[in-house]
Amino acid sequence: MDLSELDSFLDRTDLDGYLIEADGEDPSQRYLSGFTAPDPFVTLYTGETRLLTSALEYGRAKRTARADGVERHAEFDHKAFVAEYGPTEGKHRTIAAFLDAHDVERVAVPEDFPIGTADGLRELGVAVQTDTDAIVESIRATKTDREIDHIRAAQSANEAAMARAEELLGAASVDGGRLVYEGEPLTSERLKEAIEIDLLRNGYALDETIVACGADAADPHDRGSGPLEAGEPIIVDIFPRSKETGYYGDLTRTFCVGEPSETVQSWYDLTLEAQRAALEVIEAGVSGSEVHDAVCDIYEDAGLPTLRADGDAETGFIHTTGHGIGLDIHEYPRLSEQEIELEAGNVVTVEPGLYDPTVGGVRIEDLVVVTEDGHENLTSYEKELPVDPDR
Amino acid sequence: MDLSELDSFLDRTDLDGYLIEADGEDPSQRYLSGFTAPDPFVTLYTGETRLLTSALEYGRAKRTARADGVERHAEFDHKAFVAEYGPTEGKHRTIAAFLDAHDVERVAVPEDFPIGTADGLRELGVAVQTDTDAIVESIRATKTDREIDHIRAAQSANEAAMARAEELLGAASVDGGRLVYEGEPLTSERLKEAIEIDLLRNGYALDETIVACGADAADPHDRGSGPLEAGEPIIVDIFPRSKETGYYGDLTRTFCVGEPSETVQSWYDLTLEAQRAALEVIEAGVSGSEVHDAVCDIYEDAGLPTLRADGDAETGFIHTTGHGIGLDIHEYPRLSEQEIELEAGNVVTVEPGLYDPTVGGVRIEDLVVVTEDGHENLTSYEKELPVDPDR
Repeated sequence: MDLSELDSFLDRTDLDGYLIEADGEDPSQRYLSGFTAPDPFVTLYTGETRLLTSALEYGRAKRTARADGVERHAEFDHKAFVAEYGPTEGKHRTIAAFLDAHDVERVAVPEDFPIGTADGLRELGVAVQTDTDAIVESIRATKTDREIDHIRAAQSANEAAMARAEELLGAASVDGGRLVYEGEPLTSERLKEAIEIDLLRNGYALDETIVACGADAADPHDRGSGPLEAGEPIIVDIFPRSKETGYYGDLTRTFCVGEPSETVQSWYDLTLEAQRAALEVIEAGVSGSEVHDAVCDIYEDAGLPTLRADGDAETGFIHTTGHGIGLDIHEYPRLSEQEIELEAGNVVTVEPGLYDPTVGGVRIEDLVVVTEDGHENLTSYEKELPVDPDR
Repeated sequence: MDLSELDSFLDRTDLDGYLIEADGEDPSQRYLSGFTAPDPFVTLYTGETRLLTSALEYGRAKRTARADGVERHAEFDHKAFVAEYGPTEGKHRTIAAFLDAHDVERVAVPEDFPIGTADGLRELGVAVQTDTDAIVESIRATKTDREIDHIRAAQSANEAAMARAEELLGAASVDGGRLVYEGEPLTSERLKEAIEIDLLRNGYALDETIVACGADAADPHDRGSGPLEAGEPIIVDIFPRSKETGYYGDLTRTFCVGEPSETVQSWYDLTLEAQRAALEVIEAGVSGSEVHDAVCDIYEDAGLPTLRADGDAETGFIHTTGHGIGLDIHEYPRLSEQEIELEAGNVVTVEPGLYDPTVGGVRIEDLVVVTEDGHENLTSYEKELPVDPDR
């Protein structure tokens, strides 16, 4: 983990430290502190990393956090402050005392730092400045080899779950146009359950999974529900997070059991072409927008709508090409219309797709590491619209 | 859902609206909007509820949100703003234009509203005032019958998962002091997996579960790992969330396979007594601190340390008695040293416990609804330290 960019940011801005107050799931806090907890805690970076926790988290933080020091509320008169000023201002005063103990008078905070604490600290004389450059998110965007290994492991577990999904689809029979597996309708819910149990057994958690068929699949964020149908494209999008490391994988395939319509097959082929074009462009120094443009070009050349051509488009290619991934499912950099120069060590999804309620949806998503002269694809799952019955 | 408190708050403070910008998992945003999404969106309450979303979430928000109106970024020149001012200020200008379109010049925001957006809106002439009374969290604390049903359902699924855990413990044999199930060591990890698969099959997700034995169990937030041991207290704490409704359950039992030590048995009995004393006190009009005091009294009378008696205590009763639960796992009200008057419709955990690395940990947790003259316990799982082999 190279925090030299953060050091020079603090030097340059003449600030004493970088302050995060968030729950332990906050990716930047977890990144800086190496600690996670169900309740909010405070991380201060001044060149050294210091944590301020509740009594409840103190022992575990001391044992497991990647920090130069861990202190708890009680060391800064928290109880007396709360008794005198109430829980909200009491907390602000405790944090101010913690900052004061470390000679910190001026802090940068991330854009999502809570306004209540920011304004509270300001009233107590602490200068609080929003870091509009998202410096920690920007540092997080460039992964170490160790982080890439965590993401590779997540994607590998992800592929095993995708194979489990395809296995069920391949083993399904068709009754009245609908898929049936082991005598019961094969629904989106059943397939998601099989995927999630497979991942759980491997140490990965997910709040949601997308298995969307027909009109459901035409909405890129619809999770899907109900019976899966033969001859319709079925989007399976899985984004598990390692319970141990906190890093995500992200993988989408589109399957069809039985004969797809000509439109769906042509959309699939076009999407594969768009993904190849995007992957071709990716390398360090290129802008995320160039990657996105490669996808939009293919789709627009084929006469299909894109958000680039029409900001109001509701069908066609109606999302961005990809996003960074790490301790957060969506993070820097973006492969979108924004000009963001890719760097070696970025890990991004590449996921073109086409959507229309009258057709359904098609999306193909890989996860790749940006390298100096191209990319390394962390995904090896095959790309075939027809389900492979031998999975 | 009764938002009249929010209406009178807006009247009283002479503010035009209540603004939330957060991802869809944010409990207050989900509460107000009836919508959830993986990426951040904006909810504005002015008496009516209006959403501002990305193109990607727009269709689903229109179909499923509990809102009087849904608009998307494109309707407020988002693309032009981003092109001229960059993504951050561009977003602020889009939100400001959205507010302006609804004649909103002065907004209240929750304490955890992002400082970046708050300061950005202020620079654009919007008055942004932090709601230090946590009005939406306070409204959320009083549940409707429908919400209580959602929590009851979660707790019922939770009890089934606890029974599955106890079933495995009851079926385990002992080899060299360690538990063995179906020929393999019964570890914390295996028990958690069985619990989580059971919940997943019922539509509940969890990022983590606590199955902590021995010294692990002495840290109330340690998730536990490794082999489970005979004769040691095993804390099983499960907090699943419904994938459909978003509401949580929360349940802890402590088990022992084989003979517990005298200390562990006496701690268990004392904790049960402390829980009964707390439940006895609970009713509308009582302060959360009175409930907490009932627990502390029992423990202190028995000569055991508490955080109430000694803010630096690292053993004994080192957390609060309970917390509200709903769309968030920890929410208002608290059963702690804070003076918070309980109201009918609050749903709180009651979870006394004792901890010491040389002994292990013991915790017993139920989930109850506060009523006018007492409480309704949503938990019926039996409380017995020795594992029931007939589960």
